[in-house]
Amino acid sequence: MSIFKKNAADVFTQPTLEVNLNRLIDNYKQLCEIIAPAKPSAVVKDDSYGLGATMVAQALYENANCRDFWVAHAWEGQRIAALVPEANIRVLQGIGADSVDIFAKYKLIPVISSPEMLAFWKAHKIDGIKPVIHVETGLNRLGFREHEIKELSKADLKSFSMVMSHLSCADEKDHFMNQHQLDNFKQIRSRYFADLPATLSASDGAFLGQEYVFDMVRLGAAMYGINTAPYRPNQMQNVVTVRAPVLQIADLPKGDFVGYSATYRAATKRKIAIVSIGYGDGLPRSLSNTGRIYFNIQGKVNEARIIGRMSMDNVICDVTDIEGLKVGMFADIINDIYTLDDIARDAGTISYEVVSRIGKNPRYNKKYILG
Amino acid sequence: MSIFKKNAADVFTQPTLEVNLNRLIDNYKQLCEIIAPAKPSAVVKDDSYGLGATMVAQALYENANCRDFWVAHAWEGQRIAALVPEANIRVLQGIGADSVDIFAKYKLIPVISSPEMLAFWKAHKIDGIKPVIHVETGLNRLGFREHEIKELSKADLKSFSMVMSHLSCADEKDHFMNQHQLDNFKQIRSRYFADLPATLSASDGAFLGQEYVFDMVRLGAAMYGINTAPYRPNQMQNVVTVRAPVLQIADLPKGDFVGYSATYRAATKRKIAIVSIGYGDGLPRSLSNTGRIYFNIQGKVNEARIIGRMSMDNVICDVTDIEGLKVGMFADIINDIYTLDDIARDAGTISYEVVSRIGKNPRYNKKYILG
Repeated sequence: MSIFKKNAADVFTQPTLEVNLNRLIDNYKQLCEIIAPAKPSAVVKDDSYGLGATMVAQALYENANCRDFWVAHAWEGQRIAALVPEANIRVLQGIGADSVDIFAKYKLIPVISSPEMLAFWKAHKIDGIKPVIHVETGLNRLGFREHEIKELSKADLKSFSMVMSHLSCADEKDHFMNQHQLDNFKQIRSRYFADLPATLSASDGAFLGQEYVFDMVRLGAAMYGINTAPYRPNQMQNVVTVRAPVLQIADLPKGDFVGYSATYRAATKRKIAIVSIGYGDGLPRSLSNTGRIYFNIQGKVNEARIIGRMSMDNVICDVTDIEGLKVGMFADIINDIYTLDDIARDAGTISYEVVSRIGKNPRYNKKYILG
Repeated sequence: MSIFKKNAADVFTQPTLEVNLNRLIDNYKQLCEIIAPAKPSAVVKDDSYGLGATMVAQALYENANCRDFWVAHAWEGQRIAALVPEANIRVLQGIGADSVDIFAKYKLIPVISSPEMLAFWKAHKIDGIKPVIHVETGLNRLGFREHEIKELSKADLKSFSMVMSHLSCADEKDHFMNQHQLDNFKQIRSRYFADLPATLSASDGAFLGQEYVFDMVRLGAAMYGINTAPYRPNQMQNVVTVRAPVLQIADLPKGDFVGYSATYRAATKRKIAIVSIGYGDGLPRSLSNTGRIYFNIQGKVNEARIIGRMSMDNVICDVTDIEGLKVGMFADIINDIYTLDDIARDAGTISYEVVSRIGKNPRYNKKYILG
């Protein structure tokens, strides 16, 4: 029985996740125009921020001519390698004893970020592969510090195919760190890697202007619909829709408590709906007593507040003023009007964490829209 | 190349997750003694709180004679059905149009929690299956309210195999809701389901005393090592160990910033370590600038503070005072001394959410200990 042959008396139990690859491809193409003439590349690490790296990589390869991909771990590269046969797959966390065999087999390109990793690479070199060197410019995360670059031999410096760094505050247009890191990157590049292609920016950096794009931009969050330039309205399309069925509707008597630890108490008589989605489905538990859920009933969008603590499998919301709601209807958890950015803000975190948790979660009835 | 044939110069990139099934079985057996003569059952919903339902269910079936399992969704039951052939698998979220075929094929037992779901069940009954009825006693989540039970026919009342409810505050021994829900459950049972086996408590209820165990207890969180009686020290053994490799160690100059949005600034010169695990691996991003990481170096346990914002793939910590730390060593993220309960408290959430996120995450090099 399919969820798409619905009878009036049907009830449902499983939440659904829909990924709109058409919109994702549109976002990617729009970003390509913004960064031109710099070369685009797609960040599909963490299973494409949870949305399915095999689906996303193949869609971009076949429909948007993407030939450069970034993953975090070698095994993530392994999963997409056969789907993007003529592409370069670069591995941001680099190479180690737990991944060197995968690099060799799938011809992945490691990003080398420390002298120790370079030493490991030199001891386990793979024919035909020239790694990327990651240099540190102000994030104080991964990357060679300048005193470490100075100690590299000429042969070492010539052994790389690309130089990269990463911005820390590119989602704040006027943050002083942007110019600071740009200056550092230019200086390091001109001193040590003048002949190499360079990449500094991810999709937030793409909006900072032409100075920041260099030879390649690593397009990720914006492609997935996240607003990486939150100082202005989102120019990207939403890609993610999450829905969950209403399992039960009940009266909540005045004075009654709701949920674990009885953190909500009804000051007046209310009507509640129990919706079949919880933190086990990746929804942030921090939405307890604060998040919002939407019900589209005959074209009218109704907002309901989450009340009480979110459970592993269920969330309870106040539907007192919502007319026409019935068991078996689906609630909108994330969609075009209440986006990843909105739910992340209400949960006190960032969209990246929300989509990474929800997308990779195996509990959804999943659907991809393409073509 | 295995992570277990480590050379001095090796570096590593992938975090590891170890699930100790021996300890999980021990926890289960200890709980069985506490609840005797009530029958035990194992809650393996949400992929065994993320730890792997196929591994956990099979281990309990074969090593602890467990014959009763609870899942949230039918497809979760489907995954374990062949591994526990003579067991009853009950499905807490119940049955719907999106799962009825799975119930029929794998002989799963639905938990019916509303009149609408009962109507659906009666229209799609499966031969040989008698469902569980879920009654509401104070949590105000799923379950028949008493006025709905009153409207059931005698035949309806006789059609169930078990009556269940769920406690809201069982982790607080003296919370007034415990006695309130106990009284409600006893009353509803004696009025409508006097002949049926009954289950009220999950593992937190198991510690409230013999009155709360009825015929069956649904053992979950405590079995997974979570302290469900936090008013006293944990009597369960830790089951989860998470480790992640140090990718880089660097000096942090006085005045420098760390991580996205530059939320940490070094007031004095520090030494930092970049560890290859982040919120993409399910680690709560709310540990940013507050969480702790441990390094066991030659038998000495060293504590390091997380500084700056956690990234998707990396976390940065202050290792200024830690001697002997080297790239390639593994940090302890969760273990016997810094448990799920500890990291959840530091992250501002509950252990259940942390283990559900980390356990189901596909990015770990996973290992099960059994036998």
